[in-house]
Amino acid sequence: MTRPDRMAAYPADRVTLREVGLRDGLQMVKSWPSTAAKIDWLTREHGAGVRHFELGSFLPAARFPQFADLPALIDAAGTLPGLHAAVLTLNERAMDAAFASSISEVVCVVSATEAHSLANIRRSRADSVALVRRAADMRDAQAPDVLVNAGIAMALGCSITGAVDPSEVLRLAESCLDAGADIVGIADTVGYAGPREVATLCDGMTRLCGEKPFIVHLHDTRGTGIANAAAALDHGARVLDGALAGLGGCPFAPGATGNVVFEDLVYLSERMGFTTGIDIAALTGIRRILETEIPDETLYGALARSGPPSNLDWRAH
Amino acid sequence: MTRPDRMAAYPADRVTLREVGLRDGLQMVKSWPSTAAKIDWLTREHGAGVRHFELGSFLPAARFPQFADLPALIDAAGTLPGLHAAVLTLNERAMDAAFASSISEVVCVVSATEAHSLANIRRSRADSVALVRRAADMRDAQAPDVLVNAGIAMALGCSITGAVDPSEVLRLAESCLDAGADIVGIADTVGYAGPREVATLCDGMTRLCGEKPFIVHLHDTRGTGIANAAAALDHGARVLDGALAGLGGCPFAPGATGNVVFEDLVYLSERMGFTTGIDIAALTGIRRILETEIPDETLYGALARSGPPSNLDWRAH
Repeated sequence: MTRPDRMAAYPADRVTLREVGLRDGLQMVKSWPSTAAKIDWLTREHGAGVRHFELGSFLPAARFPQFADLPALIDAAGTLPGLHAAVLTLNERAMDAAFASSISEVVCVVSATEAHSLANIRRSRADSVALVRRAADMRDAQAPDVLVNAGIAMALGCSITGAVDPSEVLRLAESCLDAGADIVGIADTVGYAGPREVATLCDGMTRLCGEKPFIVHLHDTRGTGIANAAAALDHGARVLDGALAGLGGCPFAPGATGNVVFEDLVYLSERMGFTTGIDIAALTGIRRILETEIPDETLYGALARSGPPSNLDWRAH
Repeated sequence: MTRPDRMAAYPADRVTLREVGLRDGLQMVKSWPSTAAKIDWLTREHGAGVRHFELGSFLPAARFPQFADLPALIDAAGTLPGLHAAVLTLNERAMDAAFASSISEVVCVVSATEAHSLANIRRSRADSVALVRRAADMRDAQAPDVLVNAGIAMALGCSITGAVDPSEVLRLAESCLDAGADIVGIADTVGYAGPREVATLCDGMTRLCGEKPFIVHLHDTRGTGIANAAAALDHGARVLDGALAGLGGCPFAPGATGNVVFEDLVYLSERMGFTTGIDIAALTGIRRILETEIPDETLYGALARSGPPSNLDWRAH
């Protein structure tokens, strides 16, 4: 049973945009910002009005040195008023660390297809759902205010099996909710979806989740990221992920674009009538940190080049 | 009265994508491809399945040297089977030249707002519509097979007045049709629109034009280009413009992205179930011409980086 106060972080009556750059954006990079620069990024985005962040992943520092400073980021996030901090937890050890910290949300990952689940997550989908249940149980015992988020990877196309049946994704989403997840996300991990696939799956998620919001995590691998976000908003999605400057890339298409560009997503949301509370000009200014700290990464995004229309009221009211 | 054989170039029951890179894409560049490279571009896109091109603008070569070789391009286009060649004609002299040539379509421009019309086109909207009528009359007398296209600039937002009333655009579109235009286009010249604005205007255009297709010309200035194209396709548009690699820029936002990326538009259309007849891999290969000939121009586009999904049937059937 979801405690209403936990879900207050994701109100059903407005759009929430989650900055996942510090986690998904840095997953594949060869160099990453210093801890001080990451904290600067976090602090300045908070100053720009962003309230939802994925801060990193509890993973062995030897293999994922980009996330070694996660505790410092969690501490920094704890000083910023109203900030909702999520971390990726792929196993029980990570969950232990997460529930002992001051974070507000753990993100578990379930794969939409058995083939990808076994090959990449190295457990069956049933075992992944069981881990969601374990997360919910641990949360209930150790940190009852923490939200459990189950993200369904490859929900709109799979690097191994190709097309994914939306009804299978919906069954899996339902299993995650039954297992105790407070919120479920659908991820177009490899950027396969067009807007119609997003619309269909979001319609199904809207039916499944009712009043409870769900998360849509899109990659812009094939240029449809913002179109897919528009389809998601048109079909009931109220929580969307993005990464500053579109950081993130694609493990299956080297050199490809990454997550949906966060600042462009803010613009789209406002242009479509959804208030975000986020200052785009402040946001695009923060790209400077990335330009300085990870100069070899390609930064994407239109708003950083053009700014919003100067003589038109593009903000939602 | 539109002759049915003229409109055969724009069948109502399928999607037609127009490559405007040779015209709108080169309007603002500081350097441009050699004539041989332009012909190579044209020939190879024709080989990739593209049939609709804007080749350039009949303008004084002293001020617009990038279009000085337009007659050579028209000759080259004439050798390619099934190619439908359009040229921009901003005055009667240009129309005379166009109707004396072997082109298939002249494009006249009308501005959606009186302020922009006077400031940039240097004539009133009424005078612009009168020029459309003059084009239709000249065409009837000199080249009855040539299609007259009236493009409404700033139809989704104006660099001078800001927001544009869609009902005003529809009245203007109707005036153009009454004046003898075979087809009308709506252009988001400065990339102000979000998908909802595009949907509203396309709904109106669908009502106005009935069975007759209309053209949607989008710029990706603020990252909404592909989302706007999706909205257009969802709301009745069947003819869309794009430019290879998103060439074109924006005169009011220096450094901003330009036209919708043609190859990404092909992918979107196919992904949404509309057959284009265009080979994306062949198309992205043609970007090499631009890389070589205009190396200082930024090239955009996701498909050129990622390719289409490899294990999924993304093409329309």
